[in-house]
Amino acid sequence: MADQTHRQLHLGAILEGVGANQSSWLDPDLPGDASIDIGWYIDQARLAETAAFDLVFIVDSPYITPDTAPHFLNRLEPLTLLSAVAASTSRIGLVGTLTTSYWEPYNVARQFGSLDHISHGRAGWNVVTTGLEGAARNYGRTEHFDHGVRYARAREFVDVVQGLWDSYEDDAFPRDRASGIFLDKAKQHRLDHKGAHFSVAGPLALSRSRQGQPVIFQAGDSDEGRKLGAQVAEGIFTIGADFDSARAYYADLKARATAIGRDPDHIKILAGLTPIIADSDEEARAIDAAGRGALDLGKLLVQLGRAFNYHDFAQYGLDEPFPDLSGVTLNSYKGQAERIIRTARDESLTLRQAAYRFGDWRSQFIGSPETVANEIERWFREGAVDGFLLQVTRPEPFRRFREDVVPILQARGLFRTEYAHDTLRGHLGLSVPENRHGAILPSPAAVAAE
Amino acid sequence: MADQTHRQLHLGAILEGVGANQSSWLDPDLPGDASIDIGWYIDQARLAETAAFDLVFIVDSPYITPDTAPHFLNRLEPLTLLSAVAASTSRIGLVGTLTTSYWEPYNVARQFGSLDHISHGRAGWNVVTTGLEGAARNYGRTEHFDHGVRYARAREFVDVVQGLWDSYEDDAFPRDRASGIFLDKAKQHRLDHKGAHFSVAGPLALSRSRQGQPVIFQAGDSDEGRKLGAQVAEGIFTIGADFDSARAYYADLKARATAIGRDPDHIKILAGLTPIIADSDEEARAIDAAGRGALDLGKLLVQLGRAFNYHDFAQYGLDEPFPDLSGVTLNSYKGQAERIIRTARDESLTLRQAAYRFGDWRSQFIGSPETVANEIERWFREGAVDGFLLQVTRPEPFRRFREDVVPILQARGLFRTEYAHDTLRGHLGLSVPENRHGAILPSPAAVAAE
Repeated sequence: MADQTHRQLHLGAILEGVGANQSSWLDPDLPGDASIDIGWYIDQARLAETAAFDLVFIVDSPYITPDTAPHFLNRLEPLTLLSAVAASTSRIGLVGTLTTSYWEPYNVARQFGSLDHISHGRAGWNVVTTGLEGAARNYGRTEHFDHGVRYARAREFVDVVQGLWDSYEDDAFPRDRASGIFLDKAKQHRLDHKGAHFSVAGPLALSRSRQGQPVIFQAGDSDEGRKLGAQVAEGIFTIGADFDSARAYYADLKARATAIGRDPDHIKILAGLTPIIADSDEEARAIDAAGRGALDLGKLLVQLGRAFNYHDFAQYGLDEPFPDLSGVTLNSYKGQAERIIRTARDESLTLRQAAYRFGDWRSQFIGSPETVANEIERWFREGAVDGFLLQVTRPEPFRRFREDVVPILQARGLFRTEYAHDTLRGHLGLSVPENRHGAILPSPAAVAAE
Repeated sequence: MADQTHRQLHLGAILEGVGANQSSWLDPDLPGDASIDIGWYIDQARLAETAAFDLVFIVDSPYITPDTAPHFLNRLEPLTLLSAVAASTSRIGLVGTLTTSYWEPYNVARQFGSLDHISHGRAGWNVVTTGLEGAARNYGRTEHFDHGVRYARAREFVDVVQGLWDSYEDDAFPRDRASGIFLDKAKQHRLDHKGAHFSVAGPLALSRSRQGQPVIFQAGDSDEGRKLGAQVAEGIFTIGADFDSARAYYADLKARATAIGRDPDHIKILAGLTPIIADSDEEARAIDAAGRGALDLGKLLVQLGRAFNYHDFAQYGLDEPFPDLSGVTLNSYKGQAERIIRTARDESLTLRQAAYRFGDWRSQFIGSPETVANEIERWFREGAVDGFLLQVTRPEPFRRFREDVVPILQARGLFRTEYAHDTLRGHLGLSVPENRHGAILPSPAAVAAE
């Protein structure tokens, strides 16, 4: 394990426009068109950069219905969004979500590779397999890939993309006007991949960036998802529902990585964070209660159904025990769906209770800035996380976190006061991956722990 | 036809890093890494915007070999590039090339639709079908689609993308906090397209932009290419090899559009332009001769072969007549290849002559600023073009064009001195397309001729 004295917390901001839940957009401080306003995203990214956050993070899904949560109904696509943010920031990492189920590896390698150049080494790709079955019909298929097939494809897809990113050795371009040699042709490499799911010849028309390759993120929670994460992820986005489940997840992922020969410190596990911060713990709890009281139960049931491919929960009695779903195939957000079923059973929840628990992003950290900072420190020191991804939608909670909580974390030596690096790998303490065709620029300096 | 007194010339800048030919990169004023340097692109786009150009234009091709021209070997991908440029400019149009042969319509609709929002209505998509057969092997196929199939797919692909862009009526989002209504669900529309090549359900998670939809560009020269252009294009990029062939192309395209019921003024035909500008005509001709004398014949043969799917021309005698290629299938840049064969036959060119003529971008306009402006005016007034796309690689020729030629065109009333609009449709005098589900924002003001 890393030296615990110098181990640093990592913080990211999930920029989500008007919010992936059903209620955030009601905040009058939040512009109703935030999800399609690039100026809004740039402003939030700059605020996160001012606070020296490691990265901003963009979630995604290529399927909607009329009942989808407001942000997902009408929003900017992650790659184009992040390229515009790249041109308007200078240090903060830029992580975008993109599915391996409905893209071509060659196009993905080009676009994330380009984002990595445009941002001068700040790009990351959050690898997902797409949960919602309806996505298939946007891509010429009548049926979504089975869960297992999706993960097998994802693994091969990532291998192909990483192979394409190494198409050129780092000194492949002498660009020597005197001799007329632009490219050293021996240092351009075809991939010639032929696998179970993809055949890609290459080479990619793009050299490596300052950080070598974009950072691979992953967010799966099912057994297959965890296996893929342990194999390929350098960053993990996990839901972090509560301390015990987060610690169990953390231990499991790090053990899986160790078991296959990886350094567990090279996978940074970041939990979602939606704190409710007020001047006192009492006030924060009152805000939480009022907010939960104002939620629309019908919308919560829709949102709850999302993990089950928009299963219709309105058909069940609200105050009956959480329904038996053993007949429902879990081919969407399988890990999340399994967790909901398990929790509902273990805690004997009614459907109403489950809707309030899982139908809106639930805050784990509620209290004064000191209380929230204490919880963050506990999770970080006691093996539940390497950091957090703060859900950024409403302006005031983001302001309080930056202005009231971050300074406490900094004063305790847990979080940087200014950037020590200018690549995403630098911020996360990840090394530059060796070029498989020969590394001549290992740049160990860029890798030193902060 | 449009009122000829007020008819305005359109100017675009093809931003091509170190250049799509084999020689531009040798210019010491041009950074060797221009093709992967977003700062270089942003600088050139801002210079073009300062000169009130209609648009910048990014060409593309998803296949390379070690012999590919320097720019194509290692370059930024068009969508990510243009999103970064969008965030760094405010008025100029942004047109990117993307192939319909190896992408998914749903992803293309999302990315160009997002670029259109990010740029506040300045996006354009140059629809191509991919010329080089090797591209197939980057996308899991052993063979490239046949020329005819490529164009049939392209037509259907564009229809699907435009259908997805109209997923929402323009007033679909009341975002009314009092009633809690974010979306008027009746104004979200599925596409449910099932065609010969694509099945796409929709809806797209994106509303229309200020200009309604991105502008469709196209660049085909073959019969199939011209047919597609007449059907779907709002802008055409044509090579413009000489006045007579440009005028014939112009007349043909406008007649094809008229024949199928379109207003020929709603297709703007822009020819490629690589002028050689000097203080006098004699000096310009001397620069041209010196430049051509310095070309590497071996590289010219490779470049000549590109239109023929990298056919190996080194096997033939240089001073023999241009070889008989009747046994070679023209499935790459078919229109271009046909033009080379036709010209070589009509003018009895040797292979050496053909290599010099077609193996490097040949300048049609050589002379003093006055001479170049005269030629531009002649082509524009005498029915050869609606405007030009200036090839922007080496800084000094771009500077001379902006500082010495553009002012002459402005003094003659041919080209704007400042922007009258802030969308690409506005610059090009194109109307906002009606939303197929009901137009409530026709915004005729945005469409007035400049």
